[in-house]
Amino acid sequence: MSRVRMQISVSLDGFVAGPDQSLDNPLGINGERLHEWVFPLAVWRRMHGREGGAVNASNAVVEEAFANVGATIMGRNMFGGGPGPWKGDWKGWWGDDPPFHTPVFVLTHHARDPLVMNGGTTFYFVTDGVASALDRAREAAGGKDVQVGGGADAARQFLAGHLLDEIEIHLVPLLLGSGARLLDNLPTDLQLDPIRTIGAPGVTHLKYRVVK
Amino acid sequence: MSRVRMQISVSLDGFVAGPDQSLDNPLGINGERLHEWVFPLAVWRRMHGREGGAVNASNAVVEEAFANVGATIMGRNMFGGGPGPWKGDWKGWWGDDPPFHTPVFVLTHHARDPLVMNGGTTFYFVTDGVASALDRAREAAGGKDVQVGGGADAARQFLAGHLLDEIEIHLVPLLLGSGARLLDNLPTDLQLDPIRTIGAPGVTHLKYRVVK
Repeated sequence: MSRVRMQISVSLDGFVAGPDQSLDNPLGINGERLHEWVFPLAVWRRMHGREGGAVNASNAVVEEAFANVGATIMGRNMFGGGPGPWKGDWKGWWGDDPPFHTPVFVLTHHARDPLVMNGGTTFYFVTDGVASALDRAREAAGGKDVQVGGGADAARQFLAGHLLDEIEIHLVPLLLGSGARLLDNLPTDLQLDPIRTIGAPGVTHLKYRVVK
Repeated sequence: MSRVRMQISVSLDGFVAGPDQSLDNPLGINGERLHEWVFPLAVWRRMHGREGGAVNASNAVVEEAFANVGATIMGRNMFGGGPGPWKGDWKGWWGDDPPFHTPVFVLTHHARDPLVMNGGTTFYFVTDGVASALDRAREAAGGKDVQVGGGADAARQFLAGHLLDEIEIHLVPLLLGSGARLLDNLPTDLQLDPIRTIGAPGVTHLKYRVVK
């Protein structure tokens, strides 16, 4: 059964990006520290074509998160390239061979032709909302799971629309103080059922089933 | 070595009480649901003179939290009795034999004589701030630990003052939407180091050392 899954790194005080986000600093002040737990991992380095790296309880979590994914959805902020109409030739943050290896549906207000990258990643630009992006992603996934990425706006739209089956929060013991909150302005009838909890260096992985 | 420890139940969106707190509803709308995980536990029932109850991974967490405690500190909101000068004969929410069995230092702006209860609990009312309450609690604890309770205001003052050695967050998979936040307006240099993570029915226990 195909599931719609999200995984996202969140500070202990609830932010997925710090204050003063900008083109030069898309994760805001100290926001890059949310992802420090993942970069040293062997599984992450392998996904980016590098050898070696740390092996701890987070490796299995990351492997599971990227296993059986047939399509990916992300917001415009996560894809990057700045706000407003597309300028120049921005192809995302990930180089010629992005680590998705699936069709990726990018939520945007601005139409653009698909971008075929190396390694099986093609970026499609969806201008008619999250429900449409999810329909297209489900079809493209061919029975595999759909992985929903950030940023905060995209994540909140999927949560508010009760569109997710599972969410995994990578809770980082860090206070950002302000910035973009994940769990904000959401329906309080959103019901989450813990599936499992894993402690690892610099992060706690909290996986929930979204009760439908 | 005597430690200053706090444990507190927090919703997944960061609140220790829901919206619209009042004398009739001190935990705000849905706030009592933050504590539903603890009431069925055998250890909790035993602490309140009752038999039976559930045995799961939370029992050991609660036992540890209340072990080796020589003194307790809490805010006026947790003690109750309404805001402003003391009215009537309010003796807390816990009946004649409160479950603390230690000296309890209540932070308040309004002086009051100590209240000697059954079972070793005496409430002292401290009007000169958290540092003074901590000094008195340390002395009263006689080498054992000092347990700091809520509510949110008291907890934040201890966090902001870097006065804690450990904090255990009982993270409840519940969205309150608004209310009293725990981790708000705190210095972002507050550094927390995960000690352990325990998943249990209806709650995840996250224990951190506060880096000094």
